[in-house]
Amino acid sequence: MGVRAQRPAVLAPLPTLPGDELQPPRSGGDLCIQACADDLQVAFHATHTLLRLAHGAAVARWSQLGFGRTSSTSRVQSTPRNLMGFKDGTNNLKLEDTAALDRHVWVGASERAGWMRGGTYLVARRIRILFDVWDATDVEAQERAVGRRKLSGAPLGAQDETDPADLHATTTNGPTIPTDAHIRLAAPETNGGIKILRRGYSYFDGADPETGQIDAGLFFISCQRDPQHFVALQRRLGVDDALAKHLSHTGSALFACPPGARRGSFIGASLFG
Amino acid sequence: MGVRAQRPAVLAPLPTLPGDELQPPRSGGDLCIQACADDLQVAFHATHTLLRLAHGAAVARWSQLGFGRTSSTSRVQSTPRNLMGFKDGTNNLKLEDTAALDRHVWVGASERAGWMRGGTYLVARRIRILFDVWDATDVEAQERAVGRRKLSGAPLGAQDETDPADLHATTTNGPTIPTDAHIRLAAPETNGGIKILRRGYSYFDGADPETGQIDAGLFFISCQRDPQHFVALQRRLGVDDALAKHLSHTGSALFACPPGARRGSFIGASLFG
Repeated sequence: MGVRAQRPAVLAPLPTLPGDELQPPRSGGDLCIQACADDLQVAFHATHTLLRLAHGAAVARWSQLGFGRTSSTSRVQSTPRNLMGFKDGTNNLKLEDTAALDRHVWVGASERAGWMRGGTYLVARRIRILFDVWDATDVEAQERAVGRRKLSGAPLGAQDETDPADLHATTTNGPTIPTDAHIRLAAPETNGGIKILRRGYSYFDGADPETGQIDAGLFFISCQRDPQHFVALQRRLGVDDALAKHLSHTGSALFACPPGARRGSFIGASLFG
Repeated sequence: MGVRAQRPAVLAPLPTLPGDELQPPRSGGDLCIQACADDLQVAFHATHTLLRLAHGAAVARWSQLGFGRTSSTSRVQSTPRNLMGFKDGTNNLKLEDTAALDRHVWVGASERAGWMRGGTYLVARRIRILFDVWDATDVEAQERAVGRRKLSGAPLGAQDETDPADLHATTTNGPTIPTDAHIRLAAPETNGGIKILRRGYSYFDGADPETGQIDAGLFFISCQRDPQHFVALQRRLGVDDALAKHLSHTGSALFACPPGARRGSFIGASLFG
């Protein structure tokens, strides 16, 4: 009877979402390899070796090469910039915050599918940046769309990158952080308390020879204990976010990540044990 | 009348060569941007900015993302490994050897097209490694094909990577470095004295979902004062080299590189001045 009966209720294909212009050859799949290294050569050999071991049992459906991790996941790491030029991930969940990870990232003990307790769900989205319009947008307008200063990363109205964003501050022209600013709509204070762990990469896949437009952007990866947390965020950000018009989601996938392996065992052993 | 009359005689499309399985969308072009950086984000922004500046005058025909420069070009640099796992470029021309560069890389004062004096010709070749067969080849056979030890990079019969290859040494089974070994056929001692400056990168463009085969290899780049030097090498290596059966040339381009710009001028100014 296989493992079908052990499918958690939340492990189901993501619904169609605002911003979706998904390409099937860049979407879906049953198994996921995420190979990360300081040197791309290491990631290549890891992927290559795993694909060889899978020969006859699995075949690579799609892959995405990325660089420059875009979200900081620790307090010692400086926040990298995404290809829009902005620091990205300042308010990301930090691996030091184990209580927050337990609350938002790891599947809890009440999950009926026992093999996923202590695991998480990985959402991957290939998000193309529509540079033609973005590049023609002046820096002040870019900053209003993001809600942060481009150079410092500080929230509008604040001084330093890590200063809290004051969502109540106003100027004579209205809210200091505009109502459609990305950081306002993404903030847990306004989104119902959702936090996800982002760990994405930039990608650059060349230019379209017909249009001259480059195909580059963010290979978004997030981990959360329930894929619906991502769905809820994107239903909000894909519609109201001032950044939405600059982005196109061209690939999408969801994977269940069982907890780490114990010595002598393997990842996913709990599913078959 | 444009600049057609100033075309050097050697600047002509490369002939069909052994190993060619060229894909037109990955080949040719009029202008070349080579953006190199320690961080891919920097190379992205350089390319992106130049493409924007070229808007209306030029459009990107193809691009190739690479990593891990595969040939050392200085004596202080350790030799990187290519995706076959071998140190690649041990005997490459070194930038310290200015006399050798003058002889092999830079176009000399006798060139009729004055704008190319002090310049060079860049050959780019996308060389796919056929991993299915390579991975199934045992290490000793791989070493005989290359002519070097995989771990140390030493020529067969020698101890250290930088030891000279003894092309005359023999064992009871024949030449220590086989007659079809890559380093024997590529050696200036056997190829008529040709030396080129290699400065290639590894590439990894994912896997073919139909066959499962990965598309990865060497984005070969070489500079030489005459493109025919590359042609002569490939006519030899593409036929007799034991590595040839593991390689497929899927892209090809040739570009003239005028000498560097003087302060207040620009690269190629000599062509229009």
